Amino acid sequence: MVILSKQNPLVKELASLKEKKGRRERGAFLVEGVKMVREAVAAGLDVRRIVVREDYAGETYALPAVTLGEGAFAAVCDEKTPQGIAAEVALPAAGVRPPEGRCLFLDGLQDPSNVGAIVRTAVAAGYAEVYLADCADAFSPKSVRSSMSGVFFARIMQGSREEIFSALEGVPLLAADMGGQDVFTLTPPEKFCLAIGSEGSGLSDKTRARADIIVRIPMDERCESLNAAVSAGVLMYALRRA
Amino acid sequence: MVILSKQNPLVKELASLKEKKGRRERGAFLVEGVKMVREAVAAGLDVRRIVVREDYAGETYALPAVTLGEGAFAAVCDEKTPQGIAAEVALPAAGVRPPEGRCLFLDGLQDPSNVGAIVRTAVAAGYAEVYLADCADAFSPKSVRSSMSGVFFARIMQGSREEIFSALEGVPLLAADMGGQDVFTLTPPEKFCLAIGSEGSGLSDKTRARADIIVRIPMDERCESLNAAVSAGVLMYALRRA
Repeated sequence: MVILSKQNPLVKELASLKEKKGRRERGAFLVEGVKMVREAVAAGLDVRRIVVREDYAGETYALPAVTLGEGAFAAVCDEKTPQGIAAEVALPAAGVRPPEGRCLFLDGLQDPSNVGAIVRTAVAAGYAEVYLADCADAFSPKSVRSSMSGVFFARIMQGSREEIFSALEGVPLLAADMGGQDVFTLTPPEKFCLAIGSEGSGLSDKTRARADIIVRIPMDERCESLNAAVSAGVLMYALRRA
Repeated sequence: MVILSKQNPLVKELASLKEKKGRRERGAFLVEGVKMVREAVAAGLDVRRIVVREDYAGETYALPAVTLGEGAFAAVCDEKTPQGIAAEVALPAAGVRPPEGRCLFLDGLQDPSNVGAIVRTAVAAGYAEVYLADCADAFSPKSVRSSMSGVFFARIMQGSREEIFSALEGVPLLAADMGGQDVFTLTPPEKFCLAIGSEGSGLSDKTRARADIIVRIPMDERCESLNAAVSAGVLMYALRRA
């Protein structure tokens, strides 16, 4: 059976996953495209259903599936030129838990593409947990896309700064800011959390107050800052040597 | 005098700077916003004229200026909510010249925001020249914006791979690719050029053939790649230790 109407209740619910409210209500997010769906399934995520466009002739999976007409499928997807397959995936369990190893804390990052790119880098550089306070939602379509499959592998926990600092009790907090210690000369502790603030306004006061060490990337004096994702990548890899 | 018409020849010419063809024909690009214009002037760039919206009441400069009505000013700007001031700045001299120090070569990067973010990082990390072949134009509005003031300070040279490799004769080329040497264990030569390929298709065959050393960023096996700007930043800083 092919669902054609954009007014169909399931189509409307899937389309609601583009917004944070819809994702929270359904406890799910949408993964779009051939490669991303394949990786979500391979990663063993809780895939609730596969959503395909009626002309889709690619790989399928032994999972509950629904077929949509072209208009209904386009209404569900965020991509401008969707590839014909998407997956509804359960959000990870809510709550903020302590880290298992080196981890990352994003403090007030509002750009979803930067959040996604940072999650992608965190997985690559071996930062298992990514905590987010006052940030763009890591499960928005833009963030999921720019994370590549990063959001499938990182332990993403979104909460208030208080909840996050409580989970990080006893963990040294290294926070990036102007005027800190050159990150390339620092010998980091074995286990730590790296905090990154927003490009525009930097670290929040609460995070600066909680920081054990302030670190900075050495920069030519004509530059004030780097793109937040670039900055996070340089710092994560610089501190990874230990 | 306030120019109100979008059909005014000067307004049309300034608006043409949004496109590469217009920039090439006028030999100029547009810098938008209070902060960027201030930095362009302070950097001693060849500012041909300041363009202000009639309600602009901020800082002015002892430079030729033109005042536009709201509609004409909006037509000239690429920003959705322009701040009321812009500057027409001469493009750097064309031609591909040899580097003075450590430098960067971008090979086929099509995303203007990534190109801009990389130029910004190059200035911060002390890479004086940025060569571009088959890339998004570094002087497009998106690239200029995401470079912050990076395009004012880097020596940007756009040309063919042949022209660039000719200018780089005798300079060791370190190219980023899978399967290379871990960049964190490498001792780079004193002077070198770092080549970065596109996220999607990697290095071009010509660049791979010209490379003296292939370097890679160590990554968790679940990741295939990083965002091109993040990758460039991690590599530039990793190789900067020398």
